[in-house]
Amino acid sequence: MTYQDLFETIRKKRSYLCVGLDTDPAKLPKHLLDHPNPVLEFNRRIIEATAPYCVAYKPNTAFYEAMGSQGWELLRQTLELIPRTHFSIADAKRGDIGNTSKMYAKAFFEDMKADAITVAPYMGADSVQPFLEFEGKWTILLALTSNSGSQDFQVLNVDEDHCLFERVIKTSQVWGDKHQMMYVVGATQTTELQAVRKLAPDHFLLVPGVGAQGGSLEEVSKWGMNRHCGLLVNASRSILWASDGEDFAEAAAAEARRLQEHMSHYLEKYLPSQQHD
Amino acid sequence: MTYQDLFETIRKKRSYLCVGLDTDPAKLPKHLLDHPNPVLEFNRRIIEATAPYCVAYKPNTAFYEAMGSQGWELLRQTLELIPRTHFSIADAKRGDIGNTSKMYAKAFFEDMKADAITVAPYMGADSVQPFLEFEGKWTILLALTSNSGSQDFQVLNVDEDHCLFERVIKTSQVWGDKHQMMYVVGATQTTELQAVRKLAPDHFLLVPGVGAQGGSLEEVSKWGMNRHCGLLVNASRSILWASDGEDFAEAAAAEARRLQEHMSHYLEKYLPSQQHD
Repeated sequence: MTYQDLFETIRKKRSYLCVGLDTDPAKLPKHLLDHPNPVLEFNRRIIEATAPYCVAYKPNTAFYEAMGSQGWELLRQTLELIPRTHFSIADAKRGDIGNTSKMYAKAFFEDMKADAITVAPYMGADSVQPFLEFEGKWTILLALTSNSGSQDFQVLNVDEDHCLFERVIKTSQVWGDKHQMMYVVGATQTTELQAVRKLAPDHFLLVPGVGAQGGSLEEVSKWGMNRHCGLLVNASRSILWASDGEDFAEAAAAEARRLQEHMSHYLEKYLPSQQHD
Repeated sequence: MTYQDLFETIRKKRSYLCVGLDTDPAKLPKHLLDHPNPVLEFNRRIIEATAPYCVAYKPNTAFYEAMGSQGWELLRQTLELIPRTHFSIADAKRGDIGNTSKMYAKAFFEDMKADAITVAPYMGADSVQPFLEFEGKWTILLALTSNSGSQDFQVLNVDEDHCLFERVIKTSQVWGDKHQMMYVVGATQTTELQAVRKLAPDHFLLVPGVGAQGGSLEEVSKWGMNRHCGLLVNASRSILWASDGEDFAEAAAAEARRLQEHMSHYLEKYLPSQQHD
């Protein structure tokens, strides 16, 4: 999916919602446990129910790895369930020396067929570049995350004008452009969104932290939106666990629709009117 | 394996060698390809051949993930092949928000039964703490890596006295102690080892970059060794691919023994004589 395709999808669906498929088997609705493959069935029904209201899905690899080799297969099958009309993100936060990052890129882009992968920036250029070499695929670099630990290193000043996460955004723009790279920017830190937009006015930002983590969707939209929307806002727990009864999929759809309706409103309010490029 | 156990093993075997099991199926000796499970057979023979000369093994998860769900099972089976007398490290470089890192910890400590996992520090305290909560297990935090990209962010000054990797070492010592935490310090940067030892005099360091990446084993030993050795020096490619013929295991053993003999010499030369504590 290209930059322009993604924007067209967002405009058409009036949504920039990404649904996080962080499926913890311990939290599954009890009636599903009799199903031969409860995790996959849960994901299938969540995807079917929420597809009208979102533009992207993002399984976090940790939840699947915790299920062992069967979990790895479930992750692959989950990525297969995501319709080609939707953007798929493997939230893997990988990153290693060059020849090793290339193996991760193969795993997620070739075997798993994800459109995008999240990557940790700590190891620098040669740990990120192998991901950027895959044409038509996206690298989503961690910049400012939404957890409390983001304050430990990401906000340390590294020169007179920049803290670490700003430097990550600045330096990485030499490695790739807005057509292949996005940034993770935590929604619980809305004031920093302005700083991010100064450095990366045109890039898409993947914004976690709305919903269970408490970020404000309106603040994110107000300060983060650019001429091509430039936002994918993720919600996981508030959608997946909206109900633990037999109506879990309907409840997930209702929560996804609620977020989409807000997004539709914010697109009208904050998206500059007509786009041509 | 405890801190003291690890030191005893090193002293007994006169070795602080870690063998990196970064098994790229494209590089396997041709005669193995007829075997029903060539990757596992390769690892089994490498482990058998090198076990007398090393104290630890470190499969890098990327090489296994690139093989799909079968690869994930091969990783588990490879970790099972590592004798209980040897320290096992899942080189996974994971790290995510707290509830997600806990899933990674379960995957590698419970399902895979690894003694240790490598963790990326970028997301701070709550991304690392879930790993430290597993008793008897080790967290090996990336500090200064051996690749060229380490110069992009890790060496940036974050205050008058510390650059980022030094701050990572300093801050993380509040999270855990030398009995549960080690640091990755790249061997291609021997001058920085002195700075690391000022901040973490007693911790074990996992040192990649000796061998194919060109680090000097003597420099690492001279500047990195502490009263309990405090070093695990990793070699992967120089051992695994010492020969691509039928003698690959013997060639791997020869290279491992060569490194072990140097290590035996450096233990005599640089390890302070008698240890009691």
